[in-house]
Formats: sequence, structure tokens, C-alpha cells
Amino acid sequence: MNKPRAPVASLEPLLNPRTVAIIGASQDESRIGGMPIRYMQHYAYSGEIFPINPKHRKIQGLNAYARIGDIGKQIDVAIMAVPAKIAIEIAEECAAAGVKSICAFTSGFAEMGEHGKDKQNRLRAISENYGMRILGPNCLGYFNTNSRYYATFSTSILHGEPQIGNIGLVSQSGAFGSHCFVLGRERGLGFTYMITTGNEVDVDVADCIAYLAQHHETKVIAVYMEGCQDGERLKAALGMAFEASKPVVIQKVGRTDLGAKAALSHTASLAGVDEVYDAVFAEFNVHRVNTAAELIDVAYLLSFGTWPAGNKLAVATISGGAGVLMADAAADAGLNMPKMPKVTQERLKKIIPFAGPQNPVDFTAQVYNEFPTITKYVRAIFEEGGYDSVIAFFSSLLYSDLLTAKIIEALLPVRREFPDRLFILCAMGPAKNRRKIEECNIPVLEDPTSAVNAIAAVSAIGKGFVSKKTKSAIKVIATTLPKGRINEVAAKLIFEQLGIGSPKEVLVNTKAGAISAARDIDKPVALKIVSTDILHKSDIGGVELGVSGAEMVGDAFEKIMDNSKAAVPKATIDGVLISEMVDEGVETILGIQNDPLFGPVVMFGLGGLFAEAIGDIAFKLAPLDEATAMEMVKKIRGFQVLSGARGTTPVDLQALAKAIAKLSNYAYAHKDVLQTIEINPLRVLKKGLLALDAVIISRHANKASSSQQ
Amino acid sequence: MNKPRAPVASLEPLLNPRTVAIIGASQDESRIGGMPIRYMQHYAYSGEIFPINPKHRKIQGLNAYARIGDIGKQIDVAIMAVPAKIAIEIAEECAAAGVKSICAFTSGFAEMGEHGKDKQNRLRAISENYGMRILGPNCLGYFNTNSRYYATFSTSILHGEPQIGNIGLVSQSGAFGSHCFVLGRERGLGFTYMITTGNEVDVDVADCIAYLAQHHETKVIAVYMEGCQDGERLKAALGMAFEASKPVVIQKVGRTDLGAKAALSHTASLAGVDEVYDAVFAEFNVHRVNTAAELIDVAYLLSFGTWPAGNKLAVATISGGAGVLMADAAADAGLNMPKMPKVTQERLKKIIPFAGPQNPVDFTAQVYNEFPTITKYVRAIFEEGGYDSVIAFFSSLLYSDLLTAKIIEALLPVRREFPDRLFILCAMGPAKNRRKIEECNIPVLEDPTSAVNAIAAVSAIGKGFVSKKTKSAIKVIATTLPKGRINEVAAKLIFEQLGIGSPKEVLVNTKAGAISAARDIDKPVALKIVSTDILHKSDIGGVELGVSGAEMVGDAFEKIMDNSKAAVPKATIDGVLISEMVDEGVETILGIQNDPLFGPVVMFGLGGLFAEAIGDIAFKLAPLDEATAMEMVKKIRGFQVLSGARGTTPVDLQALAKAIAKLSNYAYAHKDVLQTIEINPLRVLKKGLLALDAVIISRHANKASSSQQ
Repeated sequence: MNKPRAPVASLEPLLNPRTVAIIGASQDESRIGGMPIRYMQHYAYSGEIFPINPKHRKIQGLNAYARIGDIGKQIDVAIMAVPAKIAIEIAEECAAAGVKSICAFTSGFAEMGEHGKDKQNRLRAISENYGMRILGPNCLGYFNTNSRYYATFSTSILHGEPQIGNIGLVSQSGAFGSHCFVLGRERGLGFTYMITTGNEVDVDVADCIAYLAQHHETKVIAVYMEGCQDGERLKAALGMAFEASKPVVIQKVGRTDLGAKAALSHTASLAGVDEVYDAVFAEFNVHRVNTAAELIDVAYLLSFGTWPAGNKLAVATISGGAGVLMADAAADAGLNMPKMPKVTQERLKKIIPFAGPQNPVDFTAQVYNEFPTITKYVRAIFEEGGYDSVIAFFSSLLYSDLLTAKIIEALLPVRREFPDRLFILCAMGPAKNRRKIEECNIPVLEDPTSAVNAIAAVSAIGKGFVSKKTKSAIKVIATTLPKGRINEVAAKLIFEQLGIGSPKEVLVNTKAGAISAARDIDKPVALKIVSTDILHKSDIGGVELGVSGAEMVGDAFEKIMDNSKAAVPKATIDGVLISEMVDEGVETILGIQNDPLFGPVVMFGLGGLFAEAIGDIAFKLAPLDEATAMEMVKKIRGFQVLSGARGTTPVDLQALAKAIAKLSNYAYAHKDVLQTIEINPLRVLKKGLLALDAVIISRHANKASSSQQ
Repeated sequence: MNKPRAPVASLEPLLNPRTVAIIGASQDESRIGGMPIRYMQHYAYSGEIFPINPKHRKIQGLNAYARIGDIGKQIDVAIMAVPAKIAIEIAEECAAAGVKSICAFTSGFAEMGEHGKDKQNRLRAISENYGMRILGPNCLGYFNTNSRYYATFSTSILHGEPQIGNIGLVSQSGAFGSHCFVLGRERGLGFTYMITTGNEVDVDVADCIAYLAQHHETKVIAVYMEGCQDGERLKAALGMAFEASKPVVIQKVGRTDLGAKAALSHTASLAGVDEVYDAVFAEFNVHRVNTAAELIDVAYLLSFGTWPAGNKLAVATISGGAGVLMADAAADAGLNMPKMPKVTQERLKKIIPFAGPQNPVDFTAQVYNEFPTITKYVRAIFEEGGYDSVIAFFSSLLYSDLLTAKIIEALLPVRREFPDRLFILCAMGPAKNRRKIEECNIPVLEDPTSAVNAIAAVSAIGKGFVSKKTKSAIKVIATTLPKGRINEVAAKLIFEQLGIGSPKEVLVNTKAGAISAARDIDKPVALKIVSTDILHKSDIGGVELGVSGAEMVGDAFEKIMDNSKAAVPKATIDGVLISEMVDEGVETILGIQNDPLFGPVVMFGLGGLFAEAIGDIAFKLAPLDEATAMEMVKKIRGFQVLSGARGTTPVDLQALAKAIAKLSNYAYAHKDVLQTIEINPLRVLKKGLLALDAVIISRHANKASSSQQ
């Protein structure tokens, strides 16, 4: 992991080749080794094609070569369509012949278990030794519409040539990538690339995103992925896309336990903690979708190049019912639908007395009698309502050529007057009429709910591009992280430095010490075993809460020591912590999980049994600044419990945000050794905060702690 | 409301007419009064058409009549396509001529404000006086595919005749109903009816559901609705559909505040409390959807007539990626995807070594080389895996005529061997090839996520038909509900009879009484003002909690009395309740809201500030039996807090379910006068339950209580 990578430029011969060899080339156009030749010839690939097959002199009309070394020309990419058993040999041959890259269709590698994994490692070694980039193996190939280069055996190409456009599509899964491509093509989406990465022995989804981020014709990046081998590389690639202001839409599957298991058996890649992906995506303004239909809808809408930063939506409709439906969808999606100004409403009402002029603006089917009314209405919406986005719903209007022409006449002037607003026609009809509308730079979506959701997605992306750019610089805190195991007392000393206090407490080693400490605290106390060998101290009877009186404290001390020694006989016991019981404030949980792929992730949520049952936890990549930490706190569903709902006392949110930011920076500074930090519970008070219990585990402590879990 | 209704049979002339008059008939085929004649002539309506227009003798080739009375034949339905200003006069004329029913396209009624409402009331009076059923006004009409009767001015009919099928489509909104119809037609759905009800002066969505429940050719009922005028009628209609084992799918909009406001301005119908609709739908096994696409997907799948009661799903796929995606979708939708039996896995693995044989069963694109393998795989899935449903994912296979023929050959034998299982092909392609698959009784859905969701919907419906039929009989409890206002003490006496206890408590009227009562309780107490004139007693300083000691109790008593008198000077004060403080158990909320449309609804959820913030409340129509009450308790997200998660003590769920059932029966018995019951908090203990606070409001108390809110 994190191995140094060849620069993005090294992908150029693979992704924009001028010379291509097909090893295992076939005369049969329906075979894996025949299809790419057929497609490239049919669609007139702009480079040179060299079939390789020792048994033929001509293949599909082209001169064939026995071996790759016979061509006598620099080969940018060799498409490998040979059985697994000779794949390694062929790859070596390519490397020896100075071939710059390989696209390996061949299957029978890591997806086939241990034996296949060995073979894949040998392929990787060849790639690394020769600096030869390899796409696949076990991939469906890829295409580049600009050079009409079709290195794929997907039959989807048979039903119609991909449209040239500005969407780059990347998919780990071949069949599903091709599924999304067909879905998009049928909807009239134009692509620069479709790339399927298969087993990712070398080139992975992150590499492709990085390339597309720098590829001039690509403006939108749409991705399907199941897992990721190198988090840093993915973050870097997403960072490049963000810097280039290219929106990225990702369908990351394996979200659920069931899905993650299926992903594991499919590409043998661990899906990872799903919330961490969410946090990574949020960090780089990636929009995550859950269905192929959404992936296509959002990429389509983005391809028109307008993504407003505001979320004020107006709905104009011939159907009041569709208006209600879209208002529901807008509320669900967090879009704002303010009413039209009163004056404008009155003016519009005069134009069509039946109309509902608020928002949804229901101009009723009446407008079919007078299309110029539509122009007046939509102009008023943009001009006087100040909306960022408008959906105009016209049901099945596009089935009529006449009405299509009329609606263009009605909408085009407004489209031209307000070029920066997002303006969608929601209507059904044949492709040719949809295309006419799209040529006016007006996207067409069929389903009103999907249209609202796509607008919400695009607005969120637009907002992300604006707000993320003003993120304040982050100061990394270098407070030390002691090596080895860290006990509760030591952990709390670190937290003190990060602005998180502790209750009054004393570490004692004797019964007398316990009684004396409790007497000094002069309130009910908690007694807790302190040992880095005992992680789950409640489970083994190592905790007593709310104890008071010398006798009870003494008994509790003895009980805890006995339980601990019985449960973990070899444990090194640092003592028993006598702490003041704290009931004030709100119980929360704050933690850091150092994700193996993506590094330290901050988790924050409300504590207590009910909160745990609900699982209301926010995740963010470390490090955070205070403002982002505050956003995170406000993101949890139960936020009002912290902000003083129903007459309760609001807690010290500033101190909380500051502590989260500091802790995240601390974790980030120690990301190479840190494993976990958990402050549970963290009591947030009217003024300040108290860590009531705390665990820090660094990687060194790994073995010892896991033995007891 | 709840007015006695004409029987369903009275809709027969409207919905299956043999003789139809068009009043306001037009020679112009594109006008409202011209379109129905054009459609019916074009599609060869099986009955007789009588155009009415005093200015013409022939209209669209048919003999025209000056007035309805001139026809001299019994007219089943008159389609009214005249301006609003003469609509009443025309309706009277129809009634006088003995016309059995009217479909009123005319707009300008309730949707136009007060003046329009008056006019609509006059129309209603005519309907009631003459027993003449009226559909509309302000509706887009309706059609009956079996008799090719097209009484609509929807242009959607222009792009292709509706297919005859078994789906009855009902929509309050005209344009949106027609939108759903087009969406369905493009997907190849067959309909018996599309009916749009508009302003519902007489015939409403409930009437149409009731008719379709008895209509032989209709097997599935799909509904779009915004609101409902008569809850009892809707419940009765849904009950009829349930009894007839006809699944009902409803898109009820106005779910959100924003949507409800839009609905109000659209059809002037109050959307109602959305959760109550959920409870009503759950009661009658109605499946609720949120988008038009889902409405069409689920209705489509149901139209094939197979809805398994089990939720065991197998996914067979050529794309591992699609498999992962569907596993995610299945987990989201609550479907179960158990693995294939080990033995079968091994056998399948021998057939295709590359395959993943678990579930998803990934037979990879390899199967394209040998289609009979698919038969073997799918047969094994049904035969040895015992799944209720199977999705076979083949991406864009249906674009190829050859592959379409091959897949039919592969799947048809298994389809025939297991006719009772739900078996879906998920694939893209042109309509003609989809149709070929459908003719084998295999539904085709394009999007894998939608396919999984549709299966989940159909399985839930299937389960509902089985489990609802075994519902145990409900015993209605007739404990009295005192008339007038009911104070906390009286309310708790009622609860005692329903098995819900109270803490130790005494009602006192003097400071000395308060002190003496607190002394008897001998623990910290709560003091609460008791007055039916003061509902929100905390807000006015009428409550003190955790008070102990004679002096403090005395002060608290005085403070509460003073505050109460100051806040509501005219209040009749029954005293101050001195109650033992109870900390044990889990805080919950139990209530009854007597919904103006649907009657008493039971609400149950966890209490406390955090629970309130999350809004984790279950709703069910009263009355409930104990088993249903227990289901309700288990339905809340925080259920594990009650069931003893993380070592907490489980509470008395039996007593809770029993109390909910008894309370629901009590509420149902008093539904004519009851307004609200709220027990908040209700402490559920290890054994039994305690109402810590309680409000009962009957309708008589309405005025007094609202004055103080």
C-alpha cells in the first residue's frame, strides 16, 4: 500500500493509444479476440491495429503477426485475449518488445482463489519491473470515443455507437459498467471514456479518476466501485478532480453486510467500513448514489455544465398532482421551495385565473391553449422569484412533434436570458424530441421524483465546490503519543492537553487508598480497574458505579481486584481509579478509528443506551478545523438534545467543536502508530467537557489487547 | 361525513355504460368536447354515442341532438364538456331526463375558491337528490379498455391505445393519472380502467377502489391520491379489496409539510397526518409507494399474479457487480438472501469453475457460451435452494433477438416447473423482446435496484394477505368515558381498569395536606396542578419535581397554586397531586389520537428528550389485539432499550402489549366522543407499568382546552 506511483502521464499510451496490438486476435467477430478488431474497424479507429496470431496471415482484412516482437513498431497497448495459462509468458514477451501497456481481458487470476492470486502477483511484478501499465486482468476492456478506440468485448457496442460527450465512466465491474453505459446511451448521454478495471493488478479506479481529472474533454466523472486497495491513492485522485472542478459521482456498492460479503466473493476486495467511504466522499465533494439510475441521472444533469450553489427550487407544472409530488420529493431531498413574491403571484393569476401561482406554480393544462403564457410564467419565476433551479413538468408532451416545437419556442428565450440557472424539462417522449430539447441546453428527465433528486444532487455538488474552497487551514498538533500501551490515566493526561477535562479522580493501589480517595471526593464515586491488559472492564466486573461510604468503597475495591485477577490472571494492573460520579451535561461518544485504507476517521454521536440503539453517529476524515467539527456536531439527528431543546440547558458547543478539532489533529499527527481513541462517555457540560472513560490503543498495543477481546 | 352511500352497483352505468351522451360535443377533434368522440370512434367503442350540440345536426359523422332530452333513450352517462356557468343548469337537465350518471370535465368549481365551492355544493345537491352519480368536476375523465370506452380529453390516448390488462388505475389528479398511464403503457402494462376523480363532488377514489374490488377483470388496483374526504368510506373500500385478495398500491402525496401545503392549494383537500395514512394502509395490506416509477413497477409485477408470502430471494447474475448491488438493495429492503446449500454450490462450481455459487449466484458472462447452463443453475436455485423469488440479471441481453430466443429457451422450462415462484428477468432491450419474455409469464424489469424493491413490495403484500387473515377477533371494552372534562386523577382511575397503574399519589387542596401527603409517601415527590382548564401545566409553572422535606413541599404547593392562578385566572382548580417520584423502568409515551378522517389511532414510542428528538413513534389504527400491539412495540427503532440490550433489565412487554390493546379498545368504544388520550410518560417496569402523567380529552372539552393552548 501507498507504494510510489508512476505519474498519471504513464497512462497516456494505455488510454489514448496510437498503435494497438491484439494478442489472440480472431477472425471470428463474435469471439473475445475478434470483437475489438471488428468494433475499431467498423467505427474507424484513428490509430493502427496489429492483430497477433501465429496461425493466420490476415485477420479481419488486416495483416496479422505471429508474435508481438514481429511488428517492428512501438506498440502503445497490447490487448491480451489469450487463456490464463499463457498470460504470464505473453506479458513477459510484451515487456521485452517494449510494449508500453497491456489491457488484459484474460480471466483466471485473483478471482479464482490462491493459485490465481499467485499468478496475479507475477503479473504485477512484470508491470512493476518494466514500468508497463496493465489494465485488468479479468476486465471487459475500455473505450475512448474521441479516437473511436474500442478495446472491449462488451456486446453493448453492437446496438449503437457510444455518443461522444463529456462524461468519463469508470467501473470495477465489467458487466455492470457496460450496463451503465447502455443505460446512459439509451438516455442520450455522451461519454469520453468507459473504462472497466477488473482485478486491478495495476491500473485501478483511482488511477482512472486521476487521468480523467486531467483529461480536457472529460467534465464529469461517473464511477462504479466495490472496494479500494489504496486509500491514499483514491484520496489523491479525488483531490485532483476536486481541484480541476470536475464533479465526481460514485456508486460504491457493498454498503450493507450482505453486499459487502457479496463483494468479497466477487472481487476479493474488502468493502471496508461504509461510513468511512461516506466521510472520504464528503471530504472531496463526491456525490454518492445508490442506484445505477441515479448515477446516470446525476451524471446526465452535470454534463450540461450548470451546478448552482443555491438550493432554491421552483416547480412549474401542468399537473397540480405532480406539483404536490415534487414538493414532497423536494422536502425529502432538503431542497428549499420558497413561495413566489406576492406581487408576482397576483400578476400571474391575472394571466391564468385557474392557476396556482405560489410554488409549485401550477399553470394547469390551460397553457396548451397559449404557449406564450409559459414564457411569461417561467421568466417571472427566474426574474422575480430568484430561484436557482426550475423544473417544468409537462408529462407526455414530447410525444407530439408539434407541441415539442411549441415548447421550444416558449422556453428557449428564457433559457438564453438566464444561462446560469439550472432549468429542467420533466417530460416523456421519444428520443428524437428529447434531443431537440437538449440541443437548447435544457436537460430532459422523465420522472418528477428523479428530477428533483438529481437537482438536489447537483446543487449539493455546486455548494460543495464553493464552500470547500474556503476551508480554513489546519494546524496539526504534535502532542506526543506514548509508545506501547496507554492506560486510562495516561490517556486522560493527553486529553487534558487537547482541552478535554476529567472528573475529580485518583489512582489507588490499596483498599485504604481507595477509601481515603473517596472520602476526599466527598460524593458517590465510580471505581474502575486500570490495566492495559483489560479492555472491556465492565464485562469482567472491573467497574462499580455510584458507590459511597467507606465500607462500600472498600468492598468495591476488593471485588474489582478479585474479578480482574480471576478474569485475566496475567494482567499487569496499574491500580483502581476512584472517580467522582458526574450526572450533569449530555452523554456523548467521541472517537477516532484509524482506518487501514483512509487513515484516521473521527466519530461523534450521542451516548447512552437509546442513542446506541439508534446508531446516530457522524463520521469525518481527520484532521478537521473547528468549523468542520461544528458542522459534524450539527449533523447528528439528536442535535437538539445538545442545543437546548424543550427548555433544557444548551451545552458548550464551542468547547466540544474545539476538542473534536484538536483530537482529530492529534490523531492525524500520529496516524502511523495510532489505532483507536474512544472517549465513551464524554460528558458535554454547560461549560467545558469531561472524559468519563477513555481508551487509546496504538499499533504496538495491538497484540496484547486483542488477546483479551 | 360518513353519509350513507349508494351501493357500488350504482357506479355501473358510469363505469360500464352502454349509452353515452357528450354535452358540448365538438366537431373539432382537438377540443375537449371533440376528443372523447374521436377516441371512441377510432377505437370502436362497443356502445352508442350521442353528441349534444344545438348548433349542429352531425358531429364527427354522428347524429347530433340539441338537448339531452331529445335523445329518447336511457342514457347511462353524460360527459359534460361545457363552461362552468351553465354546468348546473345542464346537470339539472340531465337529472330531469333520467340520465344515470355524469362525468364532468368542466372546471371552475371548488378549485376556484369560495364562489366555486358554492357551485360545487349545488352540483352535489343535484347528485344526492336524483341519485345521479357524478365523476368530477374538474376531472380529465376516464376509460374502460374492455368496452373501448374513452371518456377523456387526455392527449395521452393519441400516442397509442391502452393495452387491455388487469390493472385498474385511479387518480385524483388528471394530468398525473395520465402521466402514470403513459409510463405504464410504455412499459407494456395492461389496464382495465384509468379513472381520474378531480374535485370528487360525489364519486371519489374510495368509490373507485370499491368498484374495482368487485370488478372481475381487475386484479390489481393502483392509486394516486392527495387526500381523502371520508375515512370510513376509504377503509371500507380497502377492506373490500383485501377481502377480494386484490392487492392495492397507493401513492399518497402530501407526505411532507411542503407537499401537504401544495396539496391544499391544489385540490383544497387536507392531506391529514401522514402517519395515520400509513397506519390505515398497513391495516388493509395496502402497499404505499413514493414515486410514480415505483407505482408502475409494483403494479406491473403484481399483474403477473404471483406474490409469495416468503421473502427468501436468490439473485442469479452475469455481473458480479450487479450481484453486489442487488445484495445491498435486498438488505435495504429487508429481503433475506440465504446462501445456496453447500452441496449445490459444489455441483454448480463444477459446471462453471469461474462462477460464484453462493447467493448472489454469479454465473458470469461465461454462460453466453452455453445457455443450457443457465437452466441448470436456475433449476438448482428453485429446487435445492428453496427461494421464494429469483432475479436473473442479464444486463442488455434483450437488445439481441438471437439471445432473446436463447434465454427464453433456457428459462421457460424452469418457469413451467415452478409456476408459484416469483421469477424476474432484469434486462434491457426493445419492447418487442421484452414482450416475448413477458409472454412466458416472466416479468422484465430494467433496473436491478428497482427490481429488488419491487420484489420486496410484492413479498410484503403476499405476506400481508396470509398473516392478516389469521388476525384474532377483537374484544371491545366498554369501560365508561365520563362526559365533559377529565382531570389527571379521573383519567388515571380509567387507566387502572385497563391495567395501567399509577405511582403512590394523593390529591390535596391545602398546604398542610400537601406536607402530610409527602410525609406519608416518605420519598421525594412531584407536585402537579390538577385542573381541566390547564393543559400544559409545566409551561405555566404548575409542576415541581423531586421535592422533599416539609418546608420545600409547602413552598412548592404555594408556588404552583400562585402560578396557576396567575396564568389562568378563571381556571377551576381541582387540587394539587402529590406523587411519588419513580425512576425505575423505561420512559415511554402511549397515546390515542382520534383522527377526524380515520378514527382512533394508537401511538407508541420511547419517551425522554432524545427519543422525542428522533421521533421514533409507531402508529396503528385502533382497535388492536395483543399480538398486534406487541408487533407495534417491536416496530420502534429503539426496541432493544425495552428488551434488555447491553445488560439492562428487560421490561414487562406482555403487560405493555396488553395495556396498549386494552386502551385501543377503550378508545375505539368511545370513538364518537373521544378526542385525545396521552400517557406521557408511561414508565414500563420490570413488572407492570405506571402512568406518571395523563391527559384525556373528550370532544365536549374541546372548546375549553383549546382556549388555553
